[in-house]
Amino acid sequence: LDVADLQARLRRFAAERDWERFHAPKNLAMALAVEAAELAEIFQWMSEEESRGAHLDPPTHERIADEVADVLLYLLQIADKCAVDVEPAARRKLEKNAIKHPPARRTGA
Amino acid sequence: LDVADLQARLRRFAAERDWERFHAPKNLAMALAVEAAELAEIFQWMSEEESRGAHLDPPTHERIADEVADVLLYLLQIADKCAVDVEPAARRKLEKNAIKHPPARRTGA
Amino acid sequence: LDVADLQARLRRFAAERDWERFHAPKNLAMALAVEAAELAEIFQWMSEEESRGAHLDPPTHERIADEVADVLLYLLQIADKCAVDVEPAARRKLEKNAIKHPPARRTGA
Amino acid sequence: LDVADLQARLRRFAAERDWERFHAPKNLAMALAVEAAELAEIFQWMSEEESRGAHLDPPTHERIADEVADVLLYLLQIADKCAVDVEPAARRKLEKNAIKHPPARRTGA
Repeated sequence: LDVADLQARLRRFAAERDWERFHAPKNLAMALAVEAAELAEIFQWMSEEESRGAHLDPPTHERIADEVADVLLYLLQIADKCAVDVEPAARRKLEKNAIKHPPARRTGA
Repeated sequence: LDVADLQARLRRFAAERDWERFHAPKNLAMALAVEAAELAEIFQWMSEEESRGAHLDPPTHERIADEVADVLLYLLQIADKCAVDVEPAARRKLEKNAIKHPPARRTGA
Repeated sequence: LDVADLQARLRRFAAERDWERFHAPKNLAMALAVEAAELAEIFQWMSEEESRGAHLDPPTHERIADEVADVLLYLLQIADKCAVDVEPAARRKLEKNAIKHPPARRTGA
Repeated sequence: LDVADLQARLRRFAAERDWERFHAPKNLAMALAVEAAELAEIFQWMSEEESRGAHLDPPTHERIADEVADVLLYLLQIADKCAVDVEPAARRKLEKNAIKHPPARRTGA
């Protein structure tokens, strides 16, 4: 995933629409939470088992792909505004999680 | 961002903890929404202007980076389970957004 | 607010549609989070000042009222399923908050 | 539920802490979404069946009650700031829902 290129396109997209004034991290984080809820809404009334096969239905697959994309696009904009380098941040968090939840534990989630 | 490598690590991480049974898309989408809310919580009582500078404070920067990472890690897991290829999905969504909000419009967000 | 009457109506509403099987607290909590995001979405790109006056526009007032109602209706259903008595729960939480944030503190939120 | 009394207490609570300046509907809606996510988090890794019995465990019951209360307290504050009369709003929304989802339909949710 070419994060820098997508962030450059998102910056241009916002500039061309004069939307930078709306794009404070506070507003972007709120928009991200709204998109995350729209993604969750797809699976809301499904059983867990149904949700595992939901993407096999092409229109549902497209809906999921669009909401995943919306979440990602806001996430990349927040990272850009807040000087977060996403790849090292993700790898560092995975390591923190590995320490917090050692494999032996095997309970909870 | 090496999406395939991160997804492989996340798959291994879940397998080593016997967590696959928890990782239905429904549950992952709920967990993503919870992490998105934790990211929003950082900026909740700040003004928009304060949120623009929040990352200049190192502990706040680390909190933002960790929550951005949590959202990204759940997003990559959902994409993996739902056979969504994140980069083309993001680029296609950007194009849809460009058509929906042509640059000339210049109002709203 | 006649909580018991509304909860009885909601129970009947679900029974008449054979929706009880969907109404596990897990699903209702997810639905509540989705409605909360829809309420937040109304104010998302407004400044704080604009949000203070948003309800003066009648169509926006109706949208706010509808989303407030949706959140409340899911909340009452969760309380019903989880044997939570909302009024004492709310009063007890207010007291906990008063201890956690004594008036003298005057900072943060 | 004595909505007017709770709203008066919440107004006093905010005034005593000089928090009115934070309590724009935009911020309260964001805080409500965060509390809704905290409620959802309780049930996140449970199966639907487990979530139906979760409140039988006293510490979990208390956690649910506290999060239900937090959601309600923010909801009442939003209603207060936005001049929404919660009881009629809830009853009108129930009627709208009954028209949108007639009992005969019996599918979906």
